[in-house]
Amino acid sequence: MSLSPFAPKTFPAMPAIAGFDMATAETGMRYQNRDDLWILRGQPGTHVAGVFTKNLMPGAPVDWSRRALLTPFDPQMARLIVVNSGNANVFTGTAGDKATRETAQAAGRLYDVNPEAVILASTGVIGQPLDAGKITQIMPIMVHQMHADIWHRGAKAIMTTDTFAKGATAQAEIHGVPVRVNGIAKGSGMIAPDMATMLGFIATDARIGQEALQTILTGFTQLTFNAITVDSDTSTSDTVILAASGAADHSTIMDAHDPALNDFKNALLKVMLDLSHQIIKDGEGASKFITVNVNGAASDESARAIAMSIANSPLVKTAIAGEDANWGRIVMAVGKSGEPADRDKLSVWMGPHLLAKAGQLSPEYQEEDGAAYMKKDYLEITVDIGLGHGSYTAWTCDLTHGYININADYRS
Amino acid sequence: MSLSPFAPKTFPAMPAIAGFDMATAETGMRYQNRDDLWILRGQPGTHVAGVFTKNLMPGAPVDWSRRALLTPFDPQMARLIVVNSGNANVFTGTAGDKATRETAQAAGRLYDVNPEAVILASTGVIGQPLDAGKITQIMPIMVHQMHADIWHRGAKAIMTTDTFAKGATAQAEIHGVPVRVNGIAKGSGMIAPDMATMLGFIATDARIGQEALQTILTGFTQLTFNAITVDSDTSTSDTVILAASGAADHSTIMDAHDPALNDFKNALLKVMLDLSHQIIKDGEGASKFITVNVNGAASDESARAIAMSIANSPLVKTAIAGEDANWGRIVMAVGKSGEPADRDKLSVWMGPHLLAKAGQLSPEYQEEDGAAYMKKDYLEITVDIGLGHGSYTAWTCDLTHGYININADYRS
Repeated sequence: MSLSPFAPKTFPAMPAIAGFDMATAETGMRYQNRDDLWILRGQPGTHVAGVFTKNLMPGAPVDWSRRALLTPFDPQMARLIVVNSGNANVFTGTAGDKATRETAQAAGRLYDVNPEAVILASTGVIGQPLDAGKITQIMPIMVHQMHADIWHRGAKAIMTTDTFAKGATAQAEIHGVPVRVNGIAKGSGMIAPDMATMLGFIATDARIGQEALQTILTGFTQLTFNAITVDSDTSTSDTVILAASGAADHSTIMDAHDPALNDFKNALLKVMLDLSHQIIKDGEGASKFITVNVNGAASDESARAIAMSIANSPLVKTAIAGEDANWGRIVMAVGKSGEPADRDKLSVWMGPHLLAKAGQLSPEYQEEDGAAYMKKDYLEITVDIGLGHGSYTAWTCDLTHGYININADYRS
Repeated sequence: MSLSPFAPKTFPAMPAIAGFDMATAETGMRYQNRDDLWILRGQPGTHVAGVFTKNLMPGAPVDWSRRALLTPFDPQMARLIVVNSGNANVFTGTAGDKATRETAQAAGRLYDVNPEAVILASTGVIGQPLDAGKITQIMPIMVHQMHADIWHRGAKAIMTTDTFAKGATAQAEIHGVPVRVNGIAKGSGMIAPDMATMLGFIATDARIGQEALQTILTGFTQLTFNAITVDSDTSTSDTVILAASGAADHSTIMDAHDPALNDFKNALLKVMLDLSHQIIKDGEGASKFITVNVNGAASDESARAIAMSIANSPLVKTAIAGEDANWGRIVMAVGKSGEPADRDKLSVWMGPHLLAKAGQLSPEYQEEDGAAYMKKDYLEITVDIGLGHGSYTAWTCDLTHGYININADYRS
């Protein structure tokens, strides 16, 4: 597949983060001549938070990792995250559960950690048995090749149909102490269960308690990774992990709402937004990057449902692919959401252009203005429901022939 | 647009139905050299039932017709249904409401019926003011040109982007008396608010009470017009009307569950299924006609949600366009529905081929069998959830380059 037109020119310079090291390797499981396995190790005391797919047919690694996060962790032991690409280990029956156990046990033995607390993630084809031996046979080499500054190699090892590696980094201060946030991600459909899936792994040296870490991750995921959609389909493997080594020299923050975290939270949100936008920019067949703002809804939840209804509408997305400022389809998508709305209070903008208000076409709107705006690569749809104060922003891409090409022809 | 590969060879022979006559005309509102207005008149005493879009941004005619059905009707007066194509009169503000009132009032005057009880439906572009004068100026001619046997002309007059006219007819007996059911429909996306919309109009000479008629229509719509989807988008104008003139010489049936209606109900269901399947066969860009059966769900409602999740999934639909028996995407769509399901109890068939069962690929399944099956034009997906007795069948088409062509380029 050809490189996305939105691909960044270069991968960001991602420095080491105190308390973490990692390795990559080539298992030969599916891909030729590239790494497909990444192990991230957090020093003893590292806290880990996670958010997983809501799909009710999750892969075996998702089941495993959900349990691993609930396993009481030994502060004397390191924490491991093991990620492979090429085989998602989804819908593989009890053999799939066995493969996760074998992988975690081998990792536990080699790295001297509790296997029950090892986090696993897999992405790739589904329904094919995952041969854990391919992973466990290479691990004894990896344990001697752990490095702190090979984030780019990690980002490449977890790719499937991604056309570029995705990374982001930021720094902040907590109580005057500098801390860093690094993240990598993969995904190029919101999901395509036999190839895409969205994975995100974020690491920081901040000292933050387990519960606070989970609270922050859950809240920010809703505004970032859960605010993007390529095709409305929901992966069986989606996983976002936030690990905090605590290597930074500030007192531990236990409360997610402690103002001392404000600067850190800005940095974390920036990294998570950047990564999730990179997934949209690598969206299958994307030719437009679309921001959907909904304001004035009955509640934030209602605004989110409306934003996602617009962002997921095939008719809205094909209109944008055709550079058509088709506000009628946006109105349709608002009504289809089932959320409180009133035709005569609704306003619709494309970028700075007010297209519709008070239940009809805006008299000031000029078709030429809309047509010129739609030629841009980055587009912004804004809808004001006119009922309350709920707001939400979602991101998506257009629906093009490229999407059909990729998804109609992928497996054959 | 080129004729759908699924278009029937000929329009069915649709005889007159006692108690109904109709006219068509060319308003010149949008289309050139074709009729775009259809008036159906039911004799005094005709009962009318209706089902409308659930979209919360309905067109002015939907608002009007919802009220018209609640208007107490005068059994001495005829009932009128007025349908125009080319302009949907949606999102046209108070001017749109005024246009519906003017149309109904003119019809009421000319045909000597209560204007408040006139049913209206419009389909076509949205957001453009509808000039009711174009309709009312041609009506005085139509009132002198009412015929009973021009259903084909009616079916053609209500088309927008449809590539063929849609009609169906059937007969039955009630208490030994022959009755007839005629229906016409239009629609070629489940909806595209500036062009498609689903409309269905069914007429019968049976004598059935108003409440029973509405009960039957509501129930059958759920199994027919509401069981089809092209692209998951929901029109602002969808309307299905069932009118019963009562001209047949049997005693009036007041109870929807009266066994005397069994034969009639079979005929009605056959007509409604035929019409709704014709809409899928004219689906934008359709190259495959897909039946989705869900059995063994926790309830019928749950089965419906799962069937629609599969039928609406862009990944399932593109896989089928690519003739890929991609059961993994079907499993994903089951899980995405959020309905009760258990990976290890799920079975998936493509036609007669069992692809997946007990949480993994079926050991007997041969890829060649699936690949050969997928080349057919008519495909059947069957999913057994293995939890209960809920079942539902939905129909859809594949997602192809043709859909992108039609919807990315239509308005410009």
